[in-house]
Amino acid sequence: MSPFAAENTGAKNLGTKNPGARIVVPVALEGRGYEIHIGRHQLCEAADLIAALAPGAKAALVTDERVAALHAQAFEHCLQLSGISAVRIEIPPGEASKSYSRFITLCDSLLSAKIERNDLIIAFGGGVVGDLTGFAAAVLRRGVRFVQIPTTLLSQVDSSVGGKTGINSPHGKNLIGAFHQPVLVIADTALLDTLSEREFKAGYAEVVKYGLIDDRDFFDWCEANWSRIIAGGPERDHAVAVSCKAKAAIVARDEREEGDRALLNLGHTFAHALERLTNYDASRLVHGEAVAIGLALAFRFSQRLGLCPGQDAVRVAAHLDAVGLPSRLSQVPGGAGSADEIVTAMGQDKKVKRGVLTFILARGIGKSFIAPGVAAEEVKAFIETELAAA
Amino acid sequence: MSPFAAENTGAKNLGTKNPGARIVVPVALEGRGYEIHIGRHQLCEAADLIAALAPGAKAALVTDERVAALHAQAFEHCLQLSGISAVRIEIPPGEASKSYSRFITLCDSLLSAKIERNDLIIAFGGGVVGDLTGFAAAVLRRGVRFVQIPTTLLSQVDSSVGGKTGINSPHGKNLIGAFHQPVLVIADTALLDTLSEREFKAGYAEVVKYGLIDDRDFFDWCEANWSRIIAGGPERDHAVAVSCKAKAAIVARDEREEGDRALLNLGHTFAHALERLTNYDASRLVHGEAVAIGLALAFRFSQRLGLCPGQDAVRVAAHLDAVGLPSRLSQVPGGAGSADEIVTAMGQDKKVKRGVLTFILARGIGKSFIAPGVAAEEVKAFIETELAAA
Ligand SMILES: NC(=O)c1ccc[n+]([C@@H]2O[C@H](COP(=O)([O-])OP(=O)(O)OC[C@H]3O[C@@H](n4cnc5c(N)ncnc54)[C@H](O)[C@@H]3O)[C@@H](O)[C@H]2O)c1
Ligand SMILES: NC(=O)c1ccc[n+]([C@@H]2O[C@H](COP(=O)([O-])OP(=O)(O)OC[C@H]3O[C@@H](n4cnc5c(N)ncnc54)[C@H](O)[C@@H]3O)[C@@H](O)[C@H]2O)c1
Repeated sequence: MSPFAAENTGAKNLGTKNPGARIVVPVALEGRGYEIHIGRHQLCEAADLIAALAPGAKAALVTDERVAALHAQAFEHCLQLSGISAVRIEIPPGEASKSYSRFITLCDSLLSAKIERNDLIIAFGGGVVGDLTGFAAAVLRRGVRFVQIPTTLLSQVDSSVGGKTGINSPHGKNLIGAFHQPVLVIADTALLDTLSEREFKAGYAEVVKYGLIDDRDFFDWCEANWSRIIAGGPERDHAVAVSCKAKAAIVARDEREEGDRALLNLGHTFAHALERLTNYDASRLVHGEAVAIGLALAFRFSQRLGLCPGQDAVRVAAHLDAVGLPSRLSQVPGGAGSADEIVTAMGQDKKVKRGVLTFILARGIGKSFIAPGVAAEEVKAFIETELAAA
Repeated sequence: MSPFAAENTGAKNLGTKNPGARIVVPVALEGRGYEIHIGRHQLCEAADLIAALAPGAKAALVTDERVAALHAQAFEHCLQLSGISAVRIEIPPGEASKSYSRFITLCDSLLSAKIERNDLIIAFGGGVVGDLTGFAAAVLRRGVRFVQIPTTLLSQVDSSVGGKTGINSPHGKNLIGAFHQPVLVIADTALLDTLSEREFKAGYAEVVKYGLIDDRDFFDWCEANWSRIIAGGPERDHAVAVSCKAKAAIVARDEREEGDRALLNLGHTFAHALERLTNYDASRLVHGEAVAIGLALAFRFSQRLGLCPGQDAVRVAAHLDAVGLPSRLSQVPGGAGSADEIVTAMGQDKKVKRGVLTFILARGIGKSFIAPGVAAEEVKAFIETELAAA
């Protein structure tokens, strides 16, 4: 798949100890700092690092059935080479696994596997596996260490970093969870070769987000390099590394989202409402697609409020369109619902404090900021215009 | 009930703002310190303190049906006087409420009540209400502040202090949980007047435990004053305050039980096994009764290992007997099971690290210590002797 495959052929066998170039991004958290290792073919390296973290400990490898079929054997082979025999626990793929019932089953599987306080839990999969497993690790015996090995672009650039874990409630997404930092994150970018185009692009929306928040140069670079990021190779690793660095910096400043960290929610208040209204049905909309629409909406909303130059809002949407990501409500398969429904769904979001909507708005590409007091009426009027334009 | 009631008649009406004498015990935790207020008729004071913690915030009052029938109206009256309208959420009384399913129902009730990040959750009940509510508060929206208003002696001297929260799994007690410190603890000792004698005495086992751990003088004082603690009055408040101070000191040294805090488990490895073997059936054994037996066993086991003078082990059992608490396996209604079953049940405890049993042993009253490498065989032989003696 990658035009750079020739450079990496020597390392294609995940069972060898011959990884590609590696970028290490530290996450600076007082007493609980950890590293993100990024590069192609890092699984055997990962296994060595894990073995060093917990000599003699048991490990549980939590993964979803799809990832298991594609990559679990190779990884388990690496783990064995490093002297770790891990119990494998599989969950069904998809957002529906971030449920109360799956959480209970996972906790009980981990207890059946006799995972104790000094053992390790490895989350090997996308954001669903990472969020669910991280939450189970946070509360099993009041906290067991866990390692994130994200296997989707979205999870490599976003969900595996920063310690937010959680599951969904019938009341909304991620309403039950914990801050539980991993002890290590391994982003093996070669794993992304097996990702569907749709999932890859969905993750790419989060990459673009970092440019939009506070790094206009990175957004420029993305516009020029996006096809090479998709193809694989150094650009992919670079994009993952820049994204992780951006997220790590914000998380280090504000681990518990009492301030700055909310910037990472750019596009997400809209996105969560859309996911809610499409019943978290991935056949209609995956998280990253919802984020793509959310990003474009956030910029057009900012433009409408007189904050953001029109050409920036147009550029954001044009880039998403070029990549093949949705950027308008009309692109939600089956429809997004009415303006009323969308605003109500937004009100369910946990970023609402005492009834007031907090929004991330932008004064331009790379100039996002937290706007704590946006009136629901204003949002509704904007959404009505968007729906009418379709 | 209290021989000291005359001193307190002025404050008998919980709706007045005329509380009895109050002892304040600080819990020193970097950045998350809080106070424990101890005394008779503190509920209206509590309401004022709560109002000051979160002006304008919503509150949820979680309680069990028994406590609700006895005390919720009086407390809600106080809350109203302080300008707080709290949504009441009732759970069935008893250990069975520390379950996955009750946890889910509670989380969803809190979400239905639109409890948000800046709001407050109040746990008003015994250890069951406190543990379950504290855990829900820990994970709802990744953490909401909560206040403990313990209404049993056990919860006033033990479970409400220190931030351990959790629920049970079919694999064992408290296996799923979080460290989540309350922002305030109010121990209103007048609430204990309605406690059954059995529950009061069960809680008293934890009071005795503090003397046994590292405070021989306090144990001496308990031997002399236990009937006045039960009757109510200054001795009761004193016993609660000494206990809270002892626990707060240990928690401040070692919040996450990486060392010293394990001392608080004196008697508990036995106790948890006994609760497990009696299926957490309170009609057979309540937690504090299991602890009483566990304390006596820990001392006799220490004696058998040649660590503890025989007269100290005898004194511990004699005091428990005098109070009317069980001190032998033969006193478990329906039987405790075989030595094998008891040791196996102990092995399920989360205080087990990589298969080795960690025990709290004693060199005498007030001289407990952590013994990390006790052989299961040794424990089994001891239990066999205990069972044979019956
Ligand atoms: N914790 C956080 O900070 C955070 C941040 C953003 C998103 N999230 C969460 O992340 C979740 C979405 O994550 P996601 O997009 O990774 O979804 P996902 O985990 O559902 O993965 C998407 C699909 O890709 C498959 N897959 C995973 N790796 C693969 C691979 N290497 N090859 C082929 N297929 C593969 C999965 O089986 C799944 O079907 C959402 O639940 C969202 O709420 C969390
Ligand atoms: N978190 C910790 O650090 C910690 C420490 C010790 C014990 N615990 C837990 O605490 C629980 C036991 O707590 P508990 O003994 O308080 O049990 P509990 O909460 O079940 O209360 C015992 C009974 O007393 C009733 N009750 C409560 N207050 C009353 C009052 N004022 N008047 C009359 N009746 C009243 C309750 O309805 C219940 O039936 C166990 O689950 C144990 O695991 C936790």
